[in-house]
Amino acid sequence: METQTNKAILLLSCPDTLGVVARISHFIFERRGNIINLEQHVDTEDKMFFMRIEWDLKDFTIPTEDLNEAFAPLGKEFKADWTIQLINSSCKPKVAIFVSKYSHCLLDLIWRQQTGELNCDFSVIISNHAELEPIAKNYNLDFRLFSINKENKLEQEQKEIALLKEYKIDLIVLARYMQVLTDNFIAEFPHRIINIHHSFLPAFIGSNPYKQAQDRGVKIIGATSHYATADLDEGPIIQQDITRISHSDSLNDLICKGRDLERTVLAKAVKLHLESKILVYNHKTIIFES
Amino acid sequence: METQTNKAILLLSCPDTLGVVARISHFIFERRGNIINLEQHVDTEDKMFFMRIEWDLKDFTIPTEDLNEAFAPLGKEFKADWTIQLINSSCKPKVAIFVSKYSHCLLDLIWRQQTGELNCDFSVIISNHAELEPIAKNYNLDFRLFSINKENKLEQEQKEIALLKEYKIDLIVLARYMQVLTDNFIAEFPHRIINIHHSFLPAFIGSNPYKQAQDRGVKIIGATSHYATADLDEGPIIQQDITRISHSDSLNDLICKGRDLERTVLAKAVKLHLESKILVYNHKTIIFES
Amino acid sequence: METQTNKAILLLSCPDTLGVVARISHFIFERRGNIINLEQHVDTEDKMFFMRIEWDLKDFTIPTEDLNEAFAPLGKEFKADWTIQLINSSCKPKVAIFVSKYSHCLLDLIWRQQTGELNCDFSVIISNHAELEPIAKNYNLDFRLFSINKENKLEQEQKEIALLKEYKIDLIVLARYMQVLTDNFIAEFPHRIINIHHSFLPAFIGSNPYKQAQDRGVKIIGATSHYATADLDEGPIIQQDITRISHSDSLNDLICKGRDLERTVLAKAVKLHLESKILVYNHKTIIFES
Amino acid sequence: METQTNKAILLLSCPDTLGVVARISHFIFERRGNIINLEQHVDTEDKMFFMRIEWDLKDFTIPTEDLNEAFAPLGKEFKADWTIQLINSSCKPKVAIFVSKYSHCLLDLIWRQQTGELNCDFSVIISNHAELEPIAKNYNLDFRLFSINKENKLEQEQKEIALLKEYKIDLIVLARYMQVLTDNFIAEFPHRIINIHHSFLPAFIGSNPYKQAQDRGVKIIGATSHYATADLDEGPIIQQDITRISHSDSLNDLICKGRDLERTVLAKAVKLHLESKILVYNHKTIIFES
Repeated sequence: METQTNKAILLLSCPDTLGVVARISHFIFERRGNIINLEQHVDTEDKMFFMRIEWDLKDFTIPTEDLNEAFAPLGKEFKADWTIQLINSSCKPKVAIFVSKYSHCLLDLIWRQQTGELNCDFSVIISNHAELEPIAKNYNLDFRLFSINKENKLEQEQKEIALLKEYKIDLIVLARYMQVLTDNFIAEFPHRIINIHHSFLPAFIGSNPYKQAQDRGVKIIGATSHYATADLDEGPIIQQDITRISHSDSLNDLICKGRDLERTVLAKAVKLHLESKILVYNHKTIIFES
Repeated sequence: METQTNKAILLLSCPDTLGVVARISHFIFERRGNIINLEQHVDTEDKMFFMRIEWDLKDFTIPTEDLNEAFAPLGKEFKADWTIQLINSSCKPKVAIFVSKYSHCLLDLIWRQQTGELNCDFSVIISNHAELEPIAKNYNLDFRLFSINKENKLEQEQKEIALLKEYKIDLIVLARYMQVLTDNFIAEFPHRIINIHHSFLPAFIGSNPYKQAQDRGVKIIGATSHYATADLDEGPIIQQDITRISHSDSLNDLICKGRDLERTVLAKAVKLHLESKILVYNHKTIIFES
Repeated sequence: METQTNKAILLLSCPDTLGVVARISHFIFERRGNIINLEQHVDTEDKMFFMRIEWDLKDFTIPTEDLNEAFAPLGKEFKADWTIQLINSSCKPKVAIFVSKYSHCLLDLIWRQQTGELNCDFSVIISNHAELEPIAKNYNLDFRLFSINKENKLEQEQKEIALLKEYKIDLIVLARYMQVLTDNFIAEFPHRIINIHHSFLPAFIGSNPYKQAQDRGVKIIGATSHYATADLDEGPIIQQDITRISHSDSLNDLICKGRDLERTVLAKAVKLHLESKILVYNHKTIIFES
Repeated sequence: METQTNKAILLLSCPDTLGVVARISHFIFERRGNIINLEQHVDTEDKMFFMRIEWDLKDFTIPTEDLNEAFAPLGKEFKADWTIQLINSSCKPKVAIFVSKYSHCLLDLIWRQQTGELNCDFSVIISNHAELEPIAKNYNLDFRLFSINKENKLEQEQKEIALLKEYKIDLIVLARYMQVLTDNFIAEFPHRIINIHHSFLPAFIGSNPYKQAQDRGVKIIGATSHYATADLDEGPIIQQDITRISHSDSLNDLICKGRDLERTVLAKAVKLHLESKILVYNHKTIIFES
């Protein structure tokens, strides 16, 4: 009964220097790893180097449990920040989805997971309202209600954190969750909480962005997925998309058109994260997408 | 030697009430005007009605010089704001273009005017720098240099205003003009100054929007054309467009990609204005575009 | 217990002549109808006039059952093709959805109907396969299986037609239905069958358009919704949309990206049809969308 | 008086096998080349590997004139097709532009070259009509007129080929050149002729694509840049873009909207080619664009 591990993905950032690609690709080649994908980026202003390498572990000569240790000397030599993610067909990333009352992002995530587009397990749906429980039930997903008010917020968050740790959650998706998380909660899951904001950030930060958009008379609206950070709506942006509107669109039309954006922009960010294609540096994201 | 007048365009806004379309279209029909285009919009929240009617004057029984007087009673009855624009193939709108050092918007406007896409005359190019004079010369356009500094600004603007009035300018286009106009100047030409801002407003108001965009790590940049008002970058938005960027785009890449947006977004706004397709209401635009 | 009728929508096409707008808007005004929306279009080449007028029936002096008769003389005078649609909040259009094995368009249509974006009833789901029956059951929709093979096709279609007539179906939506309908079937429902083709028509007509797209090496793929006609993939186009692809997209990636297009492009066409915003003339559509 | 060579770009395709990235990046690293950019792609179906590596030659230990010879053994070992392009700030690629009567693509290419966006020299403008000669004169570009008719076509093409070889032309751009080149001409410059077709290929192959688009009633039009091959409009596609149209757009509107697409889609293809970012394999392009 072996655990079948298929691929490894290295995400690395380090000061730009000679030979990083050569040395690291050679490290993999010598151990009989077949590179499936390599993408790199150089920030010429900050003189930083970033790389994502994905390789096949079939004939790889190092056991997966020793991989981190084996790579450590090279990482140290290049003064690199790095992680190695193992992609294992029998052990999928565990995702928690936070929702309130809007169903569109939740339904879309579930549909994409069922088609195989999102390679993960939805371990639990957490909500501050009961409205979406039937959807969770319908797809046999664990639904947990945590009502939030000013008095119980910290306490409820502690229970949520405990539950998320119990589930060994790898990623939290805020699928139109209408509560602001405390800094304390966010600090527990750095760059592991993805939020969808229903505007083209940094335009229309805060609440009611569609109303703000209508009042300003813009001709295009957008949606933005980003990692949640302590500064609200200021986290590293992962994906954005837009759609055209006109004077004849009512506020309700904006909300309808916006929903179509929100669900695809959020799903794309989740997919990129699950495939280890996002590197955060300096409050911005590098997306390895080719 | 008659002046040939082809079409009339009525732009009208009034409180929404029964019979506006019927009564006004009947007014035109009775006088043998052939309606070429009618577009209307109702703001259900503010209970306001907006309409653009374009009709052929070939068999129209009212002389064009009496048209305003003839329509006035109907306009008064509906408590309407209205203007009637005469489109005359032998007398084109006169446009002044303000530039500084960037040539792309200027070149694009000239090219579109030459192909017939923009139906106007470029009476004068006004600049605070001499760099683009050769382009003006090359196309036989009057080029006037008004160097601006803190001390002479008001004085120079007065001279510009005098020149614009002498030329009977109908529209001023700020084609990447890198000087802030005074409130006094703007007040002279209400809703007759079109500016291009090189960001997706209201994001990145002010200077260096591409640098701001890069610093924030957005995945999409934009451009916005709008009527200039006393509040900088707050005027009624006419047209917006966007393009995708990634982490691998340098600041110079953003500037290059942005230029392509700026020239088309500005040209579109100028075209809409010249065709009397823009109505301003409540700091927003209604664009009659069908 | 009166049936509450809210609005009437006139769709009309006729040879372009003087006074159509004036006369028809006056017809409505005299009978105390409040015009909510009027949109017209002139085909200057064919000298044809097209119009959509939507008006409030609250104070309208003609009973809805007499409306067609009352308008008939005016329609005759202008040699017009016309229909008047009554929009009645208590009696929604009845829609049948045809599916095979793909669920995305079906799920999306149901979701939009539940949010109120699509104002209709889904009377029946018809399929040639059993796979999607659980979805229909889950939403309490009538699901009917009609297995199709070469021998029974005509016979099965006759049963489907009988069922659709029994249900008084107003619109048939082919939501990735993988069977070609016979000309006979299509002739029963002229301009009342909407299909989604998973390519940017007229490129890649026929089967496996994503494979065709990959083989040709295009950089953009698309989807097209259109009315079904006897000529396959040649019906009047209602809506199209596209998305970018690259050499790194596998056939499966195209299928994934295409699904997102298919569902929105189909839903948009259904919405336009339900709101009587489509006029078919000369194998093309005029979309009244402002 | 040394010739300053800054960078080398290797474009390589070979059967997918272990160690290509490692071995080639090591080859560069050992010779003190600093990799600026590496992008690769694996065609898993055809089991082919493709790579573009760009490296700094400042401290590179092999003289540029020996580079091809030095790399040859490695290329042979991997059974690769490969080319190495030297990017030299003092010696730009030489480009010939073919035009007929439309100026927009020509003007746009010249403007982009002047801003530095296109790093090349325009050695000669070749045309079968005299209309655009003033533009060439205005920018001090060599303009050569080759009138073409059925009788003289082959003969004139021979003179053009001689001229292009005399100029040592690296790239030919067909900027709305309205003559079909013979197979013989095309065979002289394999994958070095870029054409712009004013439709979204493979839709509307052949002449008058905008008329074809209007007749079919599509809701989106496009433009396609591609390498010219013997099969007209069938060459490897480099870049495509689209814009929305509606029933209210006249044929002239399509032509206007299309021009904006044509110039940007052609310029983008020229830029990609000049930066050695295009690999042709199996009648399709791999675009290294990150």
